[in-house]
Amino acid sequence: MSVPRSVAAHRQAVVELLTGVSADRGKLRLPLLEALGKALAVDVYAPLSLPPFDNSQMDGFAVRSADIPDGGAELRVAEPVPAGAAPAALKPGFAAPIMTGAVIPEGADAVVPIEKATPNAFPDPAAGEAVVVLPSVAPGTYVRDSGSDIGKGELALVAGTRMGPAQLGLLAALGLTTVEVRKPWRVLLVTTGDEVVEPGKELTAGKIFDSNGTLLEASMRQAGLDVVRTGISDDDPSKLLAVLQRHTGPAEDRVDVIVTTGGVSKGAYEVVRQAMANQPVEFLPVAMQPGGPQGLGTVEGVPFLGFPGNPVSCLVSFEMFLRPALSQVLGTPAQRPVLKARLAESLTSPEGKHQVRRGTMGADGTVRMEGGAGSHLVHALARANALVQIPGDVTELAEGDEVEVWML
Amino acid sequence: MSVPRSVAAHRQAVVELLTGVSADRGKLRLPLLEALGKALAVDVYAPLSLPPFDNSQMDGFAVRSADIPDGGAELRVAEPVPAGAAPAALKPGFAAPIMTGAVIPEGADAVVPIEKATPNAFPDPAAGEAVVVLPSVAPGTYVRDSGSDIGKGELALVAGTRMGPAQLGLLAALGLTTVEVRKPWRVLLVTTGDEVVEPGKELTAGKIFDSNGTLLEASMRQAGLDVVRTGISDDDPSKLLAVLQRHTGPAEDRVDVIVTTGGVSKGAYEVVRQAMANQPVEFLPVAMQPGGPQGLGTVEGVPFLGFPGNPVSCLVSFEMFLRPALSQVLGTPAQRPVLKARLAESLTSPEGKHQVRRGTMGADGTVRMEGGAGSHLVHALARANALVQIPGDVTELAEGDEVEVWML
Repeated sequence: MSVPRSVAAHRQAVVELLTGVSADRGKLRLPLLEALGKALAVDVYAPLSLPPFDNSQMDGFAVRSADIPDGGAELRVAEPVPAGAAPAALKPGFAAPIMTGAVIPEGADAVVPIEKATPNAFPDPAAGEAVVVLPSVAPGTYVRDSGSDIGKGELALVAGTRMGPAQLGLLAALGLTTVEVRKPWRVLLVTTGDEVVEPGKELTAGKIFDSNGTLLEASMRQAGLDVVRTGISDDDPSKLLAVLQRHTGPAEDRVDVIVTTGGVSKGAYEVVRQAMANQPVEFLPVAMQPGGPQGLGTVEGVPFLGFPGNPVSCLVSFEMFLRPALSQVLGTPAQRPVLKARLAESLTSPEGKHQVRRGTMGADGTVRMEGGAGSHLVHALARANALVQIPGDVTELAEGDEVEVWML
Repeated sequence: MSVPRSVAAHRQAVVELLTGVSADRGKLRLPLLEALGKALAVDVYAPLSLPPFDNSQMDGFAVRSADIPDGGAELRVAEPVPAGAAPAALKPGFAAPIMTGAVIPEGADAVVPIEKATPNAFPDPAAGEAVVVLPSVAPGTYVRDSGSDIGKGELALVAGTRMGPAQLGLLAALGLTTVEVRKPWRVLLVTTGDEVVEPGKELTAGKIFDSNGTLLEASMRQAGLDVVRTGISDDDPSKLLAVLQRHTGPAEDRVDVIVTTGGVSKGAYEVVRQAMANQPVEFLPVAMQPGGPQGLGTVEGVPFLGFPGNPVSCLVSFEMFLRPALSQVLGTPAQRPVLKARLAESLTSPEGKHQVRRGTMGADGTVRMEGGAGSHLVHALARANALVQIPGDVTELAEGDEVEVWML
């Protein structure tokens, strides 16, 4: 193996692999709520202004500000304007009771809140004509101008935006009921290893249950990918290659990315390395622990990532390389929130390797480690809610030192 | 209205409402991947140890450490032990080629990595008998002990744990294929207002499209709730109450929580307040902006939350009250990650009110505001990725000041 590649360089290589090789999968028009978590496929322009009309920000009286001199004035009370109504123009000398969100009547240019009126309650319309004393008010006061949030024809959302509740709420406010999103990518996920047994089957001597498949499929689903699973591949390279090639043809079985686990190291039985012998796939060390050995390339033109075989290495490989690359290339999933935290304990880290430890963020802003550095510790991993990033040039950290933490 | 309640006190009131009133909805046994994001219903104990057997942490040679004196020794090479095999016992004077994850043969107690062997490559088993020179090694070196991650019968996951990829991966590693989770709560979501029109319909003068329904349903789905929607309710209180009561009976239409939007303020046409006149529901001001007016209580025993009518107020009400209460009471969704960020601009905030501004976190650790304080600014909201928390006793902040930020 060559000189280990840095984490940043390998992430960039994954970004370039995904950008360069896989074509746009196309668009999908979906009802708003089904688009939750997906990436917008096109720019969306506002078909109307928001607010659609000048409206009141308060419950109060709509007035012509010029009607009220500095010392205040007594005005006649007009017909009330509830939200949703189309009011008549406001005559000079009148004040119209108006509710929050209701249309500012033609002629009115300001709102005096009910609290500042005398009396400070709305008169009963059934009780006949009434008057109200109001203080002076500057034009525009408590008026939400039409188009002040967005004007008709303006860019509302840019292509690539991840559709969360607020983005979908905006499209609804614009009267839209569907949205064009990017079709989710399909990933073929293959776990390998003669020692690996499907959960639920019998566990004979020397075997372990496959946790990588479940762990990575869950991670991929959470990241918005469609996942195609095969059974566990045994250690026959030609069979493994045949499985992958079933999903690289032009037909509908074709996937956008292939991910394997295991078989990328330097042992004597490395099925993934052997299967890829005639494919443009590189196996290389990344200066990271766990998850150091990585495979990267294409199989019949489909981007290929070979993750190592331990569960913690799989999760770290996904979180450090594939997930951020998807965020960058597809616009979804969202980047993991990055926090600064203080270490609840001292730790050591190997020189020259970026170490990714698993930790739990406390409410007090400290992070404590879950389990040691071992990449097989899946119970410890299940207690963690964060990845703790220890750069390659750091070998010792004391309790209280600040570290970067990625929230899972 | 009385003295405004603090944000913390109102959140606590929501927690107590959800804890006290709604009974456990029961459990649901699901295939592992369908449990993603849901909360574990029961404690899970490990049906086997992890690792299930002592195994090698490296590719190398399994040895009896007592066979190798300080200066090293030449040993005869035994049958190789691939991962997944059940090896024969290791005879004294022999070293067995062993792969990462493979069973440590009986008699062996340490592994020497292949890099430290002379020659530093595995001999071809077909080439006949071979020898290898190995340095001395302490007992236990590069051996992962059976049960070192978790022992058989130990608590693997505690009830209430949110099932993410790592937790599901652990259950798979334990050989499990299904898991009992808490049944998701059902929420009835009703948007109100004479001025509000369903997106896709015609927008006449004075009307606006309903964005609250889409925004809150998306938020609730993201938080793992099942959402029941009704159409938009007009401003007839008795009709609204009838709609709610259809979902509070003992039948299968019954929901666990009711959320309405709008009609909780002090205007003349407050349909939710009027509909709740004979229900144990309190309408009160919370010292928060936006989202100050809140309704809280029960309708026929079902917890009820009345949110204000503006989209930003709805989102803030959900994020500040309902979502954290669900996290606390149900174990899911996960708490929002809280960051410290530096303000990219100065701002002012009303005294005595906790202000929740919308912002965008930059890669440089600063946060800039999106839009002003106005609770109708749904386009600005759609550009934001964070809520910026300005406590009630803070009225002015300068550029560079530190604020608490909740990542959306």
